[in-house]
Amino acid sequence: MGYESARLSPETNHTIGKVIKMAKRITVAVMGYGVVGSGVCSILADRQEKNTAYAGCDVRLKRILDIRDYPDSLFINLFTKNFDDILEDPEINVVAECIGGTGVAYKFTKALLEKGKSVVTSNKAMVAAHGCEMLEIAKSNGCHYIFEAAVGGGIPIIRTLRNSYACEDIKEIFGILNGTTNYMLTKMRSEGTDYSEALEDARKRGYAEADPTDDVEGYDACRKIAILASLAWNRFVDYRDIAVTGISKVTAADIAIAGATGNVIKLVGRCRMDNGKLYAMVSPVMVREDNPLAGVSESYNSILVNSDNLDNCMFYGRGAGRLPTASAVVSDIVDIASGLRPIYYDWNQDNVAKVEEGDEFYSEFFIYVESDDIAAAEASVKELLRSKVQQTEIKDATLGAKAVAFTTGKMRYRDLKVSLDLLADMPGKGKVRLCMPAVL
Amino acid sequence: MGYESARLSPETNHTIGKVIKMAKRITVAVMGYGVVGSGVCSILADRQEKNTAYAGCDVRLKRILDIRDYPDSLFINLFTKNFDDILEDPEINVVAECIGGTGVAYKFTKALLEKGKSVVTSNKAMVAAHGCEMLEIAKSNGCHYIFEAAVGGGIPIIRTLRNSYACEDIKEIFGILNGTTNYMLTKMRSEGTDYSEALEDARKRGYAEADPTDDVEGYDACRKIAILASLAWNRFVDYRDIAVTGISKVTAADIAIAGATGNVIKLVGRCRMDNGKLYAMVSPVMVREDNPLAGVSESYNSILVNSDNLDNCMFYGRGAGRLPTASAVVSDIVDIASGLRPIYYDWNQDNVAKVEEGDEFYSEFFIYVESDDIAAAEASVKELLRSKVQQTEIKDATLGAKAVAFTTGKMRYRDLKVSLDLLADMPGKGKVRLCMPAVL
Repeated sequence: MGYESARLSPETNHTIGKVIKMAKRITVAVMGYGVVGSGVCSILADRQEKNTAYAGCDVRLKRILDIRDYPDSLFINLFTKNFDDILEDPEINVVAECIGGTGVAYKFTKALLEKGKSVVTSNKAMVAAHGCEMLEIAKSNGCHYIFEAAVGGGIPIIRTLRNSYACEDIKEIFGILNGTTNYMLTKMRSEGTDYSEALEDARKRGYAEADPTDDVEGYDACRKIAILASLAWNRFVDYRDIAVTGISKVTAADIAIAGATGNVIKLVGRCRMDNGKLYAMVSPVMVREDNPLAGVSESYNSILVNSDNLDNCMFYGRGAGRLPTASAVVSDIVDIASGLRPIYYDWNQDNVAKVEEGDEFYSEFFIYVESDDIAAAEASVKELLRSKVQQTEIKDATLGAKAVAFTTGKMRYRDLKVSLDLLADMPGKGKVRLCMPAVL
Repeated sequence: MGYESARLSPETNHTIGKVIKMAKRITVAVMGYGVVGSGVCSILADRQEKNTAYAGCDVRLKRILDIRDYPDSLFINLFTKNFDDILEDPEINVVAECIGGTGVAYKFTKALLEKGKSVVTSNKAMVAAHGCEMLEIAKSNGCHYIFEAAVGGGIPIIRTLRNSYACEDIKEIFGILNGTTNYMLTKMRSEGTDYSEALEDARKRGYAEADPTDDVEGYDACRKIAILASLAWNRFVDYRDIAVTGISKVTAADIAIAGATGNVIKLVGRCRMDNGKLYAMVSPVMVREDNPLAGVSESYNSILVNSDNLDNCMFYGRGAGRLPTASAVVSDIVDIASGLRPIYYDWNQDNVAKVEEGDEFYSEFFIYVESDDIAAAEASVKELLRSKVQQTEIKDATLGAKAVAFTTGKMRYRDLKVSLDLLADMPGKGKVRLCMPAVL
């Protein structure tokens, strides 16, 4: 078929070369009336007119699925406990999955997509574990599976990677992806509290759950960096392949060392494509105080993307919370209503990306070495790491009296370990008190 | 017409309820082969396959318009000096305007849009001065006028406001929008240089032009905040209605005062919607050191958006430069190729938004008062501003000896001026050495 004229008659509502037949109505069901789901319902109700005006088609909430009773809810007439009321309703074409987890959410999402109903979700556990399968089902059935809210809560990072990075080769992504641990680390720094006090405080404020493992051991951040890596390089990355270190072993003394050397400790998820190899990791990292990531405090999240033309871009905002997350879910619904073309990525269960071993990750590193003979230990570190090492001033005299701090150049953790293992037997008998990746 | 089934057959390439007929080809012309235009050409050439794969239709560069000769260019066969070669070529359906200014760029853009050819641009002067008219012409002719690169260079802020803020009521936007002045202020702070030295250095590095007025007097930032305000509240804001103060009167002494009180001076553009009234201004602002904006140094830009559900989101990146800006231009082209639905906003020349007087802008303010009798001057300020004022510690003893610094609560500049005008006649005869808006 030949060329089509760019000239379109003004009365047709379409883009160049494409005839768009507007949907009459997007009819929405919300599954799970918890923190996020109830937020989605209230934003949909509050903004019905605005959403309709923006999208050019009616966006209406019809059903809410929850096993609990909400007799006082504004939406009392919309509740059901029967999933089939959604699955079998031919009017409902978009469903927000706000159940969480990978149990019933998995079963329901699969059934909906198989029926050609689009699903939008904030459920990062689902996307990280089964995103590949869900996108394949969505593709076979011509519907959407989208998840703006799954990473970075209120930070519009997924849509941005999809649209604004279409012309970019992404080299690296790193970010503070978990609000609970960032809150705890901020508190440990500002108030000198230790890990367990900080955790207790995070629990009191509702940031940490009864079982905080997922957050503090870095698993939540790990799922998110896996999703970002999958989007950045258009191939599914399994979060179980990524080396993870959480913050549960970060002590008040570590935080003090960071402070005394002009650094801040942050839990960072990183992924990088280098010569066709994919590296990814989650760990506590020493961030220099003047780096923009250092200023990301409390429960805020921040994601830095490095790419060939745009260079560094950073996206900062609320990583979680009822309204930010719910707004992200609703924005996906409005995208569908506005005629978003489904994007399935080249995620494929039989062709999952290979992630290099954690020890292969290269980075700058921060090293803090204690010794009874500082001068000798310093000389030993410099001999071992040669040109790669730069000494860092320790501003706190009490810490500096028997220790020396360094930042290395970019090197593999594996190589660094080999060198540092020798240190105890060299002059000064230096003891590595702290060693973690650094961001300058 | 009734309800349409959500179920779509998998082989049709379309979104729910919409039939999308893919364009066969996007044929592009670039006008202006300067810094940005040449970058657009090289990205289009380098990424032809990737763009085509992503957009699902062929994206091809066909013509380059420039009055200069480029005998060594890779694109030697594409050059023309005759605008009609683009205007009258029925194949060309998207044109990147990288000429700049509002002279010939205005004439050409208008003619192209009138012929139904879409125009993408990085030309903020055009968008700020004539964006309204251009969008009206684009609307009448069913084509696009889009300008991701016009604000924030490599920061994808315009697409983000269009898509991710569709479900948000924006309350305020503020940002560091001009890289040249941010570079200068960073240098003044880090090296203690004065304004004229910093300007000279910015010139040497190519950040400042021979006539730096547009940058240093804040006019460039003003156009950008006007564009952002127009997008945020969907009504055209004329940049000529916005009160502007540049950085040409910022002295090394002011920078020292900022440093001694834990602040950083930044040139900030702000706009706010409050009770249906639109406030906007550009001025140097005292930013507290722990605010994320304070860490935005060198020629980086940063834009903070505050809205009802997402709360604060910040977008940080390269504000200018060949590749970041060119990438943003190309991303608009790829958006069109991908089937973006034209969005014209409710910009209307006969219904331009009213901007309140600059003196009406309310903000926290930083005040630095000198006096031979500090205790008396301090008491006078506190009496004048009562509960609104908080004293700020001055860490530099040489500065603190005969001065006192305060931060006010939120108040109108008009009211603050009335109070401060009385100060000279009150006990201590305080002299206001520095007064500027503050960001805490």
